[in-house]
Amino acid sequence: MTALPLSGVRVIDLTRILSGPFCAMILGDLGADVIKIEAPGGDHVRGQGEKVDGFSWYFASFNRNKRSVVLDLRKPEGLAVLERLLADADILTENFRPGVLSEMGFTPERLAQINPRLIVVSVNGYGSTGPYADRPAFDFIAQAMSGYMTTNGRPDTGPLRTGPPLTDLVAGLYAALGAVAALTGRDRGGPAQRVEASMMMSTMSMLAYLSANALVTGRDPVPTGNDHPIASPYGLFRAQDGDIAIAPSTLPIVKRLLAEIGLPDLLSDPRFADNAARLANRPALNALIDAALAQDTQENWIARLNAAGVPCGRVQTLTEALADPQVAAQDMVLEVPHPGHGTVKMVGFPVKFSETPLQVRHPAPDLGAHSDEVLAEAGFDPTRIAELRAAGVIG
Amino acid sequence: MTALPLSGVRVIDLTRILSGPFCAMILGDLGADVIKIEAPGGDHVRGQGEKVDGFSWYFASFNRNKRSVVLDLRKPEGLAVLERLLADADILTENFRPGVLSEMGFTPERLAQINPRLIVVSVNGYGSTGPYADRPAFDFIAQAMSGYMTTNGRPDTGPLRTGPPLTDLVAGLYAALGAVAALTGRDRGGPAQRVEASMMMSTMSMLAYLSANALVTGRDPVPTGNDHPIASPYGLFRAQDGDIAIAPSTLPIVKRLLAEIGLPDLLSDPRFADNAARLANRPALNALIDAALAQDTQENWIARLNAAGVPCGRVQTLTEALADPQVAAQDMVLEVPHPGHGTVKMVGFPVKFSETPLQVRHPAPDLGAHSDEVLAEAGFDPTRIAELRAAGVIG
Repeated sequence: MTALPLSGVRVIDLTRILSGPFCAMILGDLGADVIKIEAPGGDHVRGQGEKVDGFSWYFASFNRNKRSVVLDLRKPEGLAVLERLLADADILTENFRPGVLSEMGFTPERLAQINPRLIVVSVNGYGSTGPYADRPAFDFIAQAMSGYMTTNGRPDTGPLRTGPPLTDLVAGLYAALGAVAALTGRDRGGPAQRVEASMMMSTMSMLAYLSANALVTGRDPVPTGNDHPIASPYGLFRAQDGDIAIAPSTLPIVKRLLAEIGLPDLLSDPRFADNAARLANRPALNALIDAALAQDTQENWIARLNAAGVPCGRVQTLTEALADPQVAAQDMVLEVPHPGHGTVKMVGFPVKFSETPLQVRHPAPDLGAHSDEVLAEAGFDPTRIAELRAAGVIG
Repeated sequence: MTALPLSGVRVIDLTRILSGPFCAMILGDLGADVIKIEAPGGDHVRGQGEKVDGFSWYFASFNRNKRSVVLDLRKPEGLAVLERLLADADILTENFRPGVLSEMGFTPERLAQINPRLIVVSVNGYGSTGPYADRPAFDFIAQAMSGYMTTNGRPDTGPLRTGPPLTDLVAGLYAALGAVAALTGRDRGGPAQRVEASMMMSTMSMLAYLSANALVTGRDPVPTGNDHPIASPYGLFRAQDGDIAIAPSTLPIVKRLLAEIGLPDLLSDPRFADNAARLANRPALNALIDAALAQDTQENWIARLNAAGVPCGRVQTLTEALADPQVAAQDMVLEVPHPGHGTVKMVGFPVKFSETPLQVRHPAPDLGAHSDEVLAEAGFDPTRIAELRAAGVIG
């Protein structure tokens, strides 16, 4: 096959749990050779989530396209092995607390001596400078501190955590972007550099008009649940046999909606004549729309309204979404053979490349499966590898 | 200054509203020369959000580091100008519905003739293939269809939209990643290619262990609001004068928490001896922790617990978060002079580069501010530019 975008790029990956491994996996998905360095015992996520015959599909789905080396970095010989691996790498990924890498001996200066072309990518909670730099981080706390929780929910719920560990994933995604950008910059003659993304700051960048408006007005947004704060009609409506999410974004689309559901004259009613009036009379408007939608089924309305150019759809549960025909057409549920662990289902690749489609080249590795192979590639001979294993430096 | 990672990269940007402009802005932030092509009248977002003297800070915060050219693509001469601009570009970004670009005459084959090195980046709702490819998209609908809404909220709220337009931003971020990766691949000798990211599929990739677990069990997650589905203690607790979000991720951290708040022996109580017991007795455990926390203030506990290595923090409103000292230390609220519009505050750059820090090189452009400049750079002489303006092709 044609080389992938990052074919030939070598990543040494010290990350664990979620944010960093997601970043490293994206680099692996894009074609990089990602060597996941694990402490003896391995990444805790190997033991987390629902398992099939003891094998975590959560681990599998965030560690594909990596090789695993077990290395004890508390031993000087382990640090020496890491140093050897870094000498040949393009990118180092890590998600220790800021300062820990330096405490291990890998200060920016030392890393530049080991490999002046090395790009160092860090994912952390709050950034490596500032008053909270040393604080331990966790998704829930980053959601709380970033303001995100107060934009989520409804007035009656109070601030509400969003379900997925969003701050980990957004930080990991930004870090992957930074890694590839730094690589491009280096390839184009720029410096090798350190790149970082934090959970709190990454999340703050995802607040769109909410933060822009807050900066203008000095006022906080009121969480509005499934209603749009400044558009009506918008939200969940009731067809004969189920809800429909409808979101007409502009006046022409509102008109298309009303025409399609048999209420073409509604906007001539002064209660609904403009968006401000419709916001003020939302319950009455929604009741009229619900009554119209009661004439047909969810499935039929979704087909009719989409054909009329009105954004709408069903609220799907996660298992329904995973079984959706569009998700299948987009190859978003992969069935990946994992030798020794059967076939693992996992979410696929959200970025599509026309000429070099991404693929699972390596299933998530067993712990230490590539220790010997990677050390041999780095020039360690079999005798030395055996010594390092006997000394508990590698596993 | 040192060149930025994407200095010298030329992006022709046909996107509007949010997902695509966010993608293009990221490329501009990274150093690319982004030429935003706007229809006469301009991107609708210029009229959206809270404004200062008629100027939308929402528009400003998603369109920095771009130049603006007004071009009427309904006119053949407008298409000819676009073709000329594409001949010199590295990347084309667009977020039309799939097929629209081809209908305008820019099929993949034609684009390859115009510029065989052009990378074409598309952001759309559901992907360009599959049964929903032609559907109009909107954040709320992508949240509904992806399963995201059923993971957000609490059992009593039912499926709940998350506040920010998350699916737009995640798709835009993935598209930017794809653009930079495709550029890197092309620079390394690979093909120029088409890249796309969709709102629904991008969102499905952010569900972490929720999707992994659902694929193992075939069961849907139950939304748990601020409680963690499988860890206790975890959540919002009450100090003397306010709530504290606390999230001990492992048993050693649970022990540190309990020691710090004066309950070191709690785990010897059979009700709290292991995580399963603590989940079953969450109300009793939370009451004991709340009673202990009532002994001191929010601020003191946050300092003490963080020092003890327990992830914790305050639920901040958005304006509190924007004023947070850590956010200031990370330069996450920028004050950007916009000639004619005063100083605009906007959220800064979540990815930090040690050697080439990102900056606002251009504030968000006035509509058509660079039409003449960009056409002159592309070889149009002043007479021809005047003709095109008189004919309403450019503005």
